[in-house]
Amino acid sequence: MALKLGRLGAGPCWRAVQGDYGRLRAWSPRGTSARVCRLPGTAGTQARRGLGHSPSAGGGSWLGTGLAAALAGLAGLAAAAFGHVQRAEMVPKSLGARSPSPGRREEGEDDELARRCSAFMTSPVTDLRELRRRPEDMKTKMELMIMETQAQVCRALAQVDGVADFSVDRWERKEGGGGITCVLQDGRVFEKAGVSISVVHGSLSEEAASQMRGRGKVLKRKDGKLPFTAMGISSVIHPKNPYAPTMHFNYRYFEVEEADGDTHWWFGGGCDLTPTYLNQEDAVHFHRTLKEACDQHGPDIYPKFKKWCDDYFYIVHRGERRGIGGIFFDDLNSPSKEEAFRFVKTCAEAVVPSYVPIVKKHCDDSFTPQDKLWQQLRRGRYVEFNLVYDRGTKFGLFTPGSRIESILMSLPLTARWEYMHSPPENSKEAEILEVLRHPKDWVH
Amino acid sequence: MALKLGRLGAGPCWRAVQGDYGRLRAWSPRGTSARVCRLPGTAGTQARRGLGHSPSAGGGSWLGTGLAAALAGLAGLAAAAFGHVQRAEMVPKSLGARSPSPGRREEGEDDELARRCSAFMTSPVTDLRELRRRPEDMKTKMELMIMETQAQVCRALAQVDGVADFSVDRWERKEGGGGITCVLQDGRVFEKAGVSISVVHGSLSEEAASQMRGRGKVLKRKDGKLPFTAMGISSVIHPKNPYAPTMHFNYRYFEVEEADGDTHWWFGGGCDLTPTYLNQEDAVHFHRTLKEACDQHGPDIYPKFKKWCDDYFYIVHRGERRGIGGIFFDDLNSPSKEEAFRFVKTCAEAVVPSYVPIVKKHCDDSFTPQDKLWQQLRRGRYVEFNLVYDRGTKFGLFTPGSRIESILMSLPLTARWEYMHSPPENSKEAEILEVLRHPKDWVH
Repeated sequence: MALKLGRLGAGPCWRAVQGDYGRLRAWSPRGTSARVCRLPGTAGTQARRGLGHSPSAGGGSWLGTGLAAALAGLAGLAAAAFGHVQRAEMVPKSLGARSPSPGRREEGEDDELARRCSAFMTSPVTDLRELRRRPEDMKTKMELMIMETQAQVCRALAQVDGVADFSVDRWERKEGGGGITCVLQDGRVFEKAGVSISVVHGSLSEEAASQMRGRGKVLKRKDGKLPFTAMGISSVIHPKNPYAPTMHFNYRYFEVEEADGDTHWWFGGGCDLTPTYLNQEDAVHFHRTLKEACDQHGPDIYPKFKKWCDDYFYIVHRGERRGIGGIFFDDLNSPSKEEAFRFVKTCAEAVVPSYVPIVKKHCDDSFTPQDKLWQQLRRGRYVEFNLVYDRGTKFGLFTPGSRIESILMSLPLTARWEYMHSPPENSKEAEILEVLRHPKDWVH
Repeated sequence: MALKLGRLGAGPCWRAVQGDYGRLRAWSPRGTSARVCRLPGTAGTQARRGLGHSPSAGGGSWLGTGLAAALAGLAGLAAAAFGHVQRAEMVPKSLGARSPSPGRREEGEDDELARRCSAFMTSPVTDLRELRRRPEDMKTKMELMIMETQAQVCRALAQVDGVADFSVDRWERKEGGGGITCVLQDGRVFEKAGVSISVVHGSLSEEAASQMRGRGKVLKRKDGKLPFTAMGISSVIHPKNPYAPTMHFNYRYFEVEEADGDTHWWFGGGCDLTPTYLNQEDAVHFHRTLKEACDQHGPDIYPKFKKWCDDYFYIVHRGERRGIGGIFFDDLNSPSKEEAFRFVKTCAEAVVPSYVPIVKKHCDDSFTPQDKLWQQLRRGRYVEFNLVYDRGTKFGLFTPGSRIESILMSLPLTARWEYMHSPPENSKEAEILEVLRHPKDWVH
């Protein structure tokens, strides 16, 4: 296993050697069952419990979105400042060498895990021995799922770009856990594409716990401690061409353990599109793909999470949404951990098919300097949303020990602000503004 | 008086006709006495009362800085959305026509006020009859002072630019008062230069009043109301040339009236420089000019307000200051209203001499694409500070009725974010970073 050490400060950085893209889907079968399950908003009062906080009345929970959405950036700053960030090469096919004492693992299990890991951008954050020890634990399943999603998305994007590769930065969090941040910058197709995962654990601070009390979760501490694990994948893709839209997605899992052994858990996430110009066909394709993913788990999920997305990605001071939406949800803790996970997995698998065809279609479109200028102004609004409103970003920025470079990889390479800019009536710039001000239903 | 109506939405805008620059200083004599007065930090315990909140322990008061620093953008959004923003021509020499019934004014007073107003970018926010009615009131003095400062700064900058002019937007606040926003965009020398004033009044909200209680000001309401007046000038200047630094200043006055007739008042403000590259000579000139202004009012003022500035303009998540500092203060309410005003006036008069010579010196410096790139990355940090930390900006963004275009005129025309950018050791980029991480004393 050749991990190379990169410094956050001055000094050389190494690029990851990219692996075999052809094996992409071998480890990611769309095995989700099509039966209707009791996800929030589908059936059963108990099943709705996790969505008690209406997104329109405050946009969900700060901590849920914050702690988990910021995961991709959490931690690592202190480590980074001391040069402990690693820029990794691809994980080798056999991981046996890294786990010389796997304990009670059986031969078959080992091979299966090694096979899955061989497709990742690098080895998981959690030690393989630990993952082998608890194969049925949701923490294991979710970590492997986000690692797979990271690899799937990075490879699909690198293939579209054709020129630039993703750098792979592995970072550790002093307090526990770490992350893997993959960034492709200034490529042929992409201005900046970041796909970051993190897996962090520790004891919840009193402040964080009190925020959870505000959401109706009264947690009993054990010797003053409240152990938690939080993990997630977060990504923002900014293409260069003004006709290829920006896309963001984030899927996360949170677990907190009480004194009496009770475990609170929930999932959160979403995926949304931010075009510079409106393309009806693309908007319908994007939303339809997400709707089909949601529909596999219940007919009411898409409408509910679509509205939540429109409500969340709202730039209040502009009276505009950031983009044309998608889906967004938080506090998902029903009908069961397994089924909620299957839903999140289906959503994660929908990322590439919802977005990559749109980028492929438009990445070589011709455009004028005027189109580029409008893109830059829209990039400015993206920055405004992320820095002023996005709970994940804010939580990350205000959390000591966060890895700032991973949090702010979401910002575009370039952005622009003009005083009193206003597009002419009936222009294509006015057309997208209209949709940002009054969200539409793209699929029924 | 020819005021033309401009729309914030789609539609034409008119440029202000610029007046005679030569008369700049006629109405702005440096009449500040040199005697040492009891400003905060100079002498007397009572005099220090207004500075009870240490800037290092939280960075001063949100409300003070917020309500007053955001003044330049406060209000007007609702009006703007309905097309009530006016782009004004220069105020005509005689204002008699606008004030046909000046009441008890004397001939001499009228001429003096008209003479002062004739040099402004447009007529003051407050009706001239009202200003004539209360010539000795601090609200009148401060409003005329900020109008004068606006004209002085705009004309000095337009003269340096030589090509572009300032647009002059007059806006009204539904709840009371309004403002005048002057912006020069994409000129020969300046990328974006905004100089905005606002004068707003109304009744303080319960939330704002409770924030003031948090700062030790317990205010008695009269019939549930707490009348306030807030006014200020706010400006950010971004030149194009990477060797010409960005400059910001803001001076503000706040008054709140209690049930028993007691009036609380205070001043706040500051001026700071943000160079892309360090130039020792410029840094010393800028700080020395501010120090000389402060020293006219007491020997301890500059060191105290210089440190406050370094503490305030701190991008916590980067571990860097926004720039090389200057001065910053808030809650200034001693030794007397008159003397505090004279100090603020001296500071406002120091803006042009502290900054304009630096821009003149560097606006035609040769530079490389690499220099421009570093400037763009630094612009990104400027955006981060303004959107994430600046209390004035945040207060404005979260205050219904704010004029967003005036608040966000502080953002640069363009900015850039690169993942993991880090300048080489011993480079001129590393040189400025060192100073931003460890503020220096430029003058003693």
